[in-house]
Amino acid sequence: MSHPGATASDRHKVVIIGSGFGGLTAAKRLKRADVDVKLIAKTTHHLFQPLLYQVATGIIPSGEIAPPTRMILRKQKNCQVVLGDVTHIDLANQTVKSELLGHTYVTPYDSLIVAAGAGQSYFGNDHFAEWAPGMKSIDDALELRARILSAFEQAERSSDPARREKLLTFTVVGAGPTGVEMAGQIAELADHTLKGAFRHIDSTTARVILLDAAPAVLPPMGEKLGKKAQDRLEKMGVDIQLGAMVTDVDRNGITVKDSDGTIRRIESATKVWSAGVQASPLGRDLAEQSEGEVDRAGRVLVNPDLTLPGHPNVFVVGDMAHVEGVPGQAQGAIQGGRYAANAIRAELKGADPTQREPFQYFDKGSMATVSRFSAVAKIGPLEFGGFIAWLAWLVLHLVYLVGFRRKLTTLVSWTVTFLSTQRGNLTITEQQAYARTRIEELQEIAAGVRDTEKVAG
Amino acid sequence: MSHPGATASDRHKVVIIGSGFGGLTAAKRLKRADVDVKLIAKTTHHLFQPLLYQVATGIIPSGEIAPPTRMILRKQKNCQVVLGDVTHIDLANQTVKSELLGHTYVTPYDSLIVAAGAGQSYFGNDHFAEWAPGMKSIDDALELRARILSAFEQAERSSDPARREKLLTFTVVGAGPTGVEMAGQIAELADHTLKGAFRHIDSTTARVILLDAAPAVLPPMGEKLGKKAQDRLEKMGVDIQLGAMVTDVDRNGITVKDSDGTIRRIESATKVWSAGVQASPLGRDLAEQSEGEVDRAGRVLVNPDLTLPGHPNVFVVGDMAHVEGVPGQAQGAIQGGRYAANAIRAELKGADPTQREPFQYFDKGSMATVSRFSAVAKIGPLEFGGFIAWLAWLVLHLVYLVGFRRKLTTLVSWTVTFLSTQRGNLTITEQQAYARTRIEELQEIAAGVRDTEKVAG
Repeated sequence: MSHPGATASDRHKVVIIGSGFGGLTAAKRLKRADVDVKLIAKTTHHLFQPLLYQVATGIIPSGEIAPPTRMILRKQKNCQVVLGDVTHIDLANQTVKSELLGHTYVTPYDSLIVAAGAGQSYFGNDHFAEWAPGMKSIDDALELRARILSAFEQAERSSDPARREKLLTFTVVGAGPTGVEMAGQIAELADHTLKGAFRHIDSTTARVILLDAAPAVLPPMGEKLGKKAQDRLEKMGVDIQLGAMVTDVDRNGITVKDSDGTIRRIESATKVWSAGVQASPLGRDLAEQSEGEVDRAGRVLVNPDLTLPGHPNVFVVGDMAHVEGVPGQAQGAIQGGRYAANAIRAELKGADPTQREPFQYFDKGSMATVSRFSAVAKIGPLEFGGFIAWLAWLVLHLVYLVGFRRKLTTLVSWTVTFLSTQRGNLTITEQQAYARTRIEELQEIAAGVRDTEKVAG
Repeated sequence: MSHPGATASDRHKVVIIGSGFGGLTAAKRLKRADVDVKLIAKTTHHLFQPLLYQVATGIIPSGEIAPPTRMILRKQKNCQVVLGDVTHIDLANQTVKSELLGHTYVTPYDSLIVAAGAGQSYFGNDHFAEWAPGMKSIDDALELRARILSAFEQAERSSDPARREKLLTFTVVGAGPTGVEMAGQIAELADHTLKGAFRHIDSTTARVILLDAAPAVLPPMGEKLGKKAQDRLEKMGVDIQLGAMVTDVDRNGITVKDSDGTIRRIESATKVWSAGVQASPLGRDLAEQSEGEVDRAGRVLVNPDLTLPGHPNVFVVGDMAHVEGVPGQAQGAIQGGRYAANAIRAELKGADPTQREPFQYFDKGSMATVSRFSAVAKIGPLEFGGFIAWLAWLVLHLVYLVGFRRKLTTLVSWTVTFLSTQRGNLTITEQQAYARTRIEELQEIAAGVRDTEKVAG
């Protein structure tokens, strides 16, 4: 397993692609191993994705859930963290090609752990992305925060009732955990946090629509919990539309096809897309060079030991791997990353790679928050909802946050938000608020629907 | 003082332009007055500018110093906050024209308080801005945070010593309070926070240069305190170059002319501009329509009662007003805003506008932090530096921060940063990190200096 063109250090070279749950866990697990680890990621931070919706809705600042990966691994001397977008893996030469601001780097490996995750999928309609950002990155969350708050600001100044209604209609596509959390939090923002802050509009009249082509909310949680979440959201005023397939998204709204074939239109300025995921294109890159295959979501069909067929030194973990019975959640990536690191460590001590025990996923359960004081949770055969589930959610997420300081300040943010409904992170930048909406509005003006108000406003 | 084309409400209309210290203070001061207040600002937040450098260097999140103005004024029912960029004031018709995303609004006023502040001045060289952002807005601070951290990331991957040195050279132009604070904080970031986080570079070898055309650091604080700050910065390794005038700024560095006429070049990837201010162009707009004049920084030469000559109902306060003996600091704006609001209240109760007492500035002193545990302060005849000044700075800034939650979380952030040198807000977005640097790097590639590394990196 040693590299053809050996360089300075003779130590076994492990390259990890991605700084998410899978990549970070693998790196940490190799701390005491006699290897040189290089972690290449396209962001400088490790993203604690389960709380991304809280950044998008102003509850916590981005720093709480996105600490720099190199700061987390600072004391792990056998690990170097580098920034770069991996564009190609060369299996024959055992190198990884990455780019950073136009510069190209080629990094050799002896063992490779590919944990580049997944992005949002628009099911072939990538042009939807401009009007309906996904919820996968810090950039997405800050963009959405700015769009949501900016819609209220624009409505406050508009004298056109139809435009105001469009601006006060928020559509969330996809009723999985992220969609449920976003819909619930936008509703709380409008009904509580922003209540009384406007003079010309009433923020509580804002309409939040949660759409899904499937017939249920939170399908993987089962019928009972899905219904529980749905009831709670409806009590909060969220308009849930199931069996509704989105056929088009544009600047002013979305087009929907209902299960009975009816085609209808929803005028809505702010759209959030949380309907599907697509694994990193590196999956296809790997499959093309090996006997491997990818599924419809671009995930690699790996061996029982999470390796690429024919390449026992190349592991694929987390959202990039298709493994029966493993959900695309943090735990799947964490356990996969740990498994791959353990295998590398064992073989450095003489274990036979052909004799690996297959990867076994331990289901720790899953949960989703619906609103403050209300969540749903499924742990083994146990299904429960309401306040107890919410408390469990709170404690668990706090425990999993990296670092003591982060736990402390997040707890302060949560205490304030949950008790007073106020939020401390509603600052929007000009860059994020206007970059795209400006283009949008200028097109509107060009189309002749300019809203020029001579008095008031 | 009633408006020509009277509308719905017959109450006296006060329009305030700007949500900085001047505008916000004026709005609050009018809380119990029988008036309709409309505050128009081009950002949704009130910016606590004295701590902006802490956002730019990752100590606190933007939410701590930029709460939405409408949330601060939420309970003040006689005040409406609207988002918009004021482009023209029509003194004859008593209206204010503002724009929001291509829509135009015209707002009538009976009394007007213009507190639109000042932007960075490049002394006629506006093209410097692209390579050396100012320190005036949240966008500036986040852009600089991303550039500073991104420079270290790029250096970690570079095998070219000259490029690495350029990337690890940080230049701050202007040795006023903001420049001193930025230089000190970049040095602490490199020497302490990031120490040991890289493998290929040593962040403590980064060079921080603080430049000024003037012969002293912090000139308004006097020779003794300026020297104190300079000594402290030099002890921290900051390279202070005085009598050095910047004659050009480009992608790769700056050109400097020393007081002896020598012209020299500094290769530096990251540049911060804090050398001068230029009042909002609304100052000139006002002067052109009245008997008024503006000074070289674009500030309006106002009457002793802060009004525009010939317009007793138009007040100009804060950084937009030229008033002898009033520094361009928070206190000048706060006291000016309060004075204007008081005058309006008095006249609603029958006072004679021609009999106003002139505005009198009460100097509460000024201070600047140099590093953790070290600051300089000047309060009346009292001048002191070091730890005591730093403690005074800390308490004062905490007291002035809006809101209890903000005080609490800021205190947590400070405790961590000052005691452990760690920082909780180092997340950078792709948008901010790459938007400009990508262009920069692509130009570099086009110029043929591409850094392609086949091994390592």
